[in-house]
Amino acid sequence: MDLQTLLCRKLEELDGKARFAEDWWEHHSGGGGRTCVIQEGNVFEKGAVNTSAISTKLTPLLAERMKVSPQEIFATGVSLILHPSSPMIPTVHANFRYLELQDGSFWFGGGADLTPYYLFEEDAHHFHAVWKTVCEQYNSGSYERFKEACDEYFFLKHRLEARGIGGIFFDYLKGDFEKVFSFVRSCAESFLKAYLPIVERRFHEPWGEREKNWQLFRRGRYVEFNLIYDRGTLFGLETQGRTESILLSLPPLVRWGYNIKPERGSKEEQLIKVLRSPRNWMEL
Amino acid sequence: MDLQTLLCRKLEELDGKARFAEDWWEHHSGGGGRTCVIQEGNVFEKGAVNTSAISTKLTPLLAERMKVSPQEIFATGVSLILHPSSPMIPTVHANFRYLELQDGSFWFGGGADLTPYYLFEEDAHHFHAVWKTVCEQYNSGSYERFKEACDEYFFLKHRLEARGIGGIFFDYLKGDFEKVFSFVRSCAESFLKAYLPIVERRFHEPWGEREKNWQLFRRGRYVEFNLIYDRGTLFGLETQGRTESILLSLPPLVRWGYNIKPERGSKEEQLIKVLRSPRNWMEL
Repeated sequence: MDLQTLLCRKLEELDGKARFAEDWWEHHSGGGGRTCVIQEGNVFEKGAVNTSAISTKLTPLLAERMKVSPQEIFATGVSLILHPSSPMIPTVHANFRYLELQDGSFWFGGGADLTPYYLFEEDAHHFHAVWKTVCEQYNSGSYERFKEACDEYFFLKHRLEARGIGGIFFDYLKGDFEKVFSFVRSCAESFLKAYLPIVERRFHEPWGEREKNWQLFRRGRYVEFNLIYDRGTLFGLETQGRTESILLSLPPLVRWGYNIKPERGSKEEQLIKVLRSPRNWMEL
Repeated sequence: MDLQTLLCRKLEELDGKARFAEDWWEHHSGGGGRTCVIQEGNVFEKGAVNTSAISTKLTPLLAERMKVSPQEIFATGVSLILHPSSPMIPTVHANFRYLELQDGSFWFGGGADLTPYYLFEEDAHHFHAVWKTVCEQYNSGSYERFKEACDEYFFLKHRLEARGIGGIFFDYLKGDFEKVFSFVRSCAESFLKAYLPIVERRFHEPWGEREKNWQLFRRGRYVEFNLIYDRGTLFGLETQGRTESILLSLPPLVRWGYNIKPERGSKEEQLIKVLRSPRNWMEL
């Protein structure tokens, strides 16, 4: 929650106009959370920084997916999603969580990924470089594994497209509690370093109706991913979490068309090409 | 396909401006379909009338959900969804399908349901009355069963809301092929009678920014239902159907906010109340 407060303060400073509104809520089976929402800002059309800590019983569906017996679970985490107004600034998502079962087993999960509407290679490189540094301090080779896991997880099978240019993703991270916790903590603390410079660099990039329209269509893919595939969304809805907090990940305004295809040779097509075959952003 | 052609012609007449564009496609494992799309009309902001007839192998997930062994399945049907521009005209969906397994078993499924943004009781009554007449010619008591199945199926657990004011829904309808087929056929042929008078009655109803905005938020619920719960959408995506045809059910423009609540005593609140506790529309 300290980190949540810090993130909100820094994001408000960056936005320069809108402020986060704060809501406390309780979970029906124990625990609760704090939801912080920013809307209609200079930078952010809609964004949220959420924390929660709940205790609940796993439903049969969730227990089956986690390959454990149905039992009490304690889940806590911070998650964040930012949908900028400008189509030149990427949407970003990050989540860091800790889970503990009644049987004493525990694990960490999390990650951060970037979803640009227009591709700026140096932004993708910068984002990945931050995560590589953090990962290398934890375990050599972990960046490569977590980067690959990210590409695999944030993939829309029915579109044959990645959600964005990736980042890192890890789940069921076990082992020495202090070591893993310290890694997850340093990930969370590196978020601003990974994202803020990109916002600052792209804020003055010009755009018009064409670019905004493209963003609205691409946001449709974001919705498709979150509602069809995302484990966190499913976990939240299945455990009867607070729907308004869980679905804050959805963009403010979204468009679905029919057979929308970018023009050949256009910047829009360039993005799609990268989403179809993920790149190694450390080699530019 | 004759019915598809007829529906498109009648809906074009009603719209008076936009025309259906037609696309033929093939399924990777056998068969294909015809997709007809209408956009930016006088009445319809986006709509589709689709037919398809495909042969494919059930994935383990689908076989499990259908409680059969993984095997070849033949699936054919007509489905239709219309998203009007005016928030005073309800969105409508209908689907009529036939499925046949390699082992020789077969069944019909289908239904039609109405999703108003503002409630006009006489429209809901009219819609249900048409389906009641069709059902009663098939089997006495079937309307009540199919109406209840509709309320149960088109329910958003995470919102504790129905998608709309219902209609009829049936699945795994077996028995005498000719009798069941004749019922499903007369359902499909009754669609225009059920929906067109409602469009005609509401077309001149005035509306402004407030009503449009409410429609955009409510369309968010439509997306949530289709991507989280809808069996047909899942079946299509899982069998690697044509994504652009399957997701034509999604509305053209959608908004997600945070904690949007209708004012007390407003027309918007009236709608929500009905979605929270489904009514018997034959007793007004």
